[in-house]
Amino acid sequence: MEVKVVRKVLDVNNTMAEQNRKLFADKNIFVLNVMSSPGSGKTTTLGKTIARLMPEMRTAVIVGDVSTTNDAERLAKTGAPVVQVNTDAFGGDCHLAAHVIATAAATLPLDDMDLLIVENVGNLVCPAEFDIGEDRKVVVLSVTEGEDKPLKYPLMFRVCDAAIVNKIDLLPYLEYNKQETIENILQVHPGMPVFEISARTEDGIDDWVNWIKDNVRRKKAL
Amino acid sequence: MEVKVVRKVLDVNNTMAEQNRKLFADKNIFVLNVMSSPGSGKTTTLGKTIARLMPEMRTAVIVGDVSTTNDAERLAKTGAPVVQVNTDAFGGDCHLAAHVIATAAATLPLDDMDLLIVENVGNLVCPAEFDIGEDRKVVVLSVTEGEDKPLKYPLMFRVCDAAIVNKIDLLPYLEYNKQETIENILQVHPGMPVFEISARTEDGIDDWVNWIKDNVRRKKAL
Repeated sequence: MEVKVVRKVLDVNNTMAEQNRKLFADKNIFVLNVMSSPGSGKTTTLGKTIARLMPEMRTAVIVGDVSTTNDAERLAKTGAPVVQVNTDAFGGDCHLAAHVIATAAATLPLDDMDLLIVENVGNLVCPAEFDIGEDRKVVVLSVTEGEDKPLKYPLMFRVCDAAIVNKIDLLPYLEYNKQETIENILQVHPGMPVFEISARTEDGIDDWVNWIKDNVRRKKAL
Repeated sequence: MEVKVVRKVLDVNNTMAEQNRKLFADKNIFVLNVMSSPGSGKTTTLGKTIARLMPEMRTAVIVGDVSTTNDAERLAKTGAPVVQVNTDAFGGDCHLAAHVIATAAATLPLDDMDLLIVENVGNLVCPAEFDIGEDRKVVVLSVTEGEDKPLKYPLMFRVCDAAIVNKIDLLPYLEYNKQETIENILQVHPGMPVFEISARTEDGIDDWVNWIKDNVRRKKAL
């Protein structure tokens, strides 16, 4: 029964996601959906990323959390317009749904944006199932989370277009096999780009930022 | 609509959870539901914990993951009976539901057990909403996940009876305020016991193990 119910919710979501996709195409905005476990360093990564993208790429952010406005406050320091969505206003959802994105996007300056970054709710399971009308999905995994997460949460790694392996500055202090993690990512999603970064030290962040810029430019050129 | 649907699923779950609770009471088994983000160190913590509990406390484990049997294989090394549940057989659920626990428990030697430990699916949101018939809920948070997680995922910290702050061996290498984390936990759930441990070095693990033993003995004495 539960499965059938979930299917119906997802159908409604997909319809809304297509409406979002059309809106973002009309406005010529590239949309990135960034997902991860809680605590993988999404917000720090995005803060450093946006600082490198702006002002060349006019960027806005929708931040999803069950509760608090902490992440929006952190990201607002970049100067980008930021909307915080608290899903406890939507039944405590464990993901951002397409209708929530539509509501949040309506408050953003869509005519003056090149890029919308959505920082999803911290969760490696549910957000993978919800299309929000994005162009690309990205998963962030930190090296403290262990090597086997791509195998344990395969849908997330299958649906994403790129993976970030974050907190590489901690590698000397961990019993952790980075190569095994990357092999596990590629086993689930052969050929997926993997960016090894430290958001704290900013190591490796340029390749990731260039990947975004290339994607935005490609959409704009269409 | 989504909220109403979820409510119905939860009502069905609560009925099944009460049946589980009655079964475990009849068999005089104490049941612990352990939840966290992916990669917080649940499995390592439980491996070290079970090694200290057995053979005094006859322990069995139900391990939930979306996919893989990695964690069951790791925990089986303790000698405890272990059942792995893969929720991709149940629609890819992001949590263990009560009916899944009932099915898994039927395969365990219930007449020869004092303690059942359930390692839930790695997720700080959804498992908090699903009663599985447990006696106590515990949340594991690792110090690499940042200070604000109790505020961002308040339901999880509100419903749990104890919290573990894991990976304290990494504190020297992090920009992290442990005291702030603990204050955030206690703000959401005043008076909740907080165990600061390193599952890797086994620092602080005895207090946590004693908390379990006290709980098991208290249920047995009823």
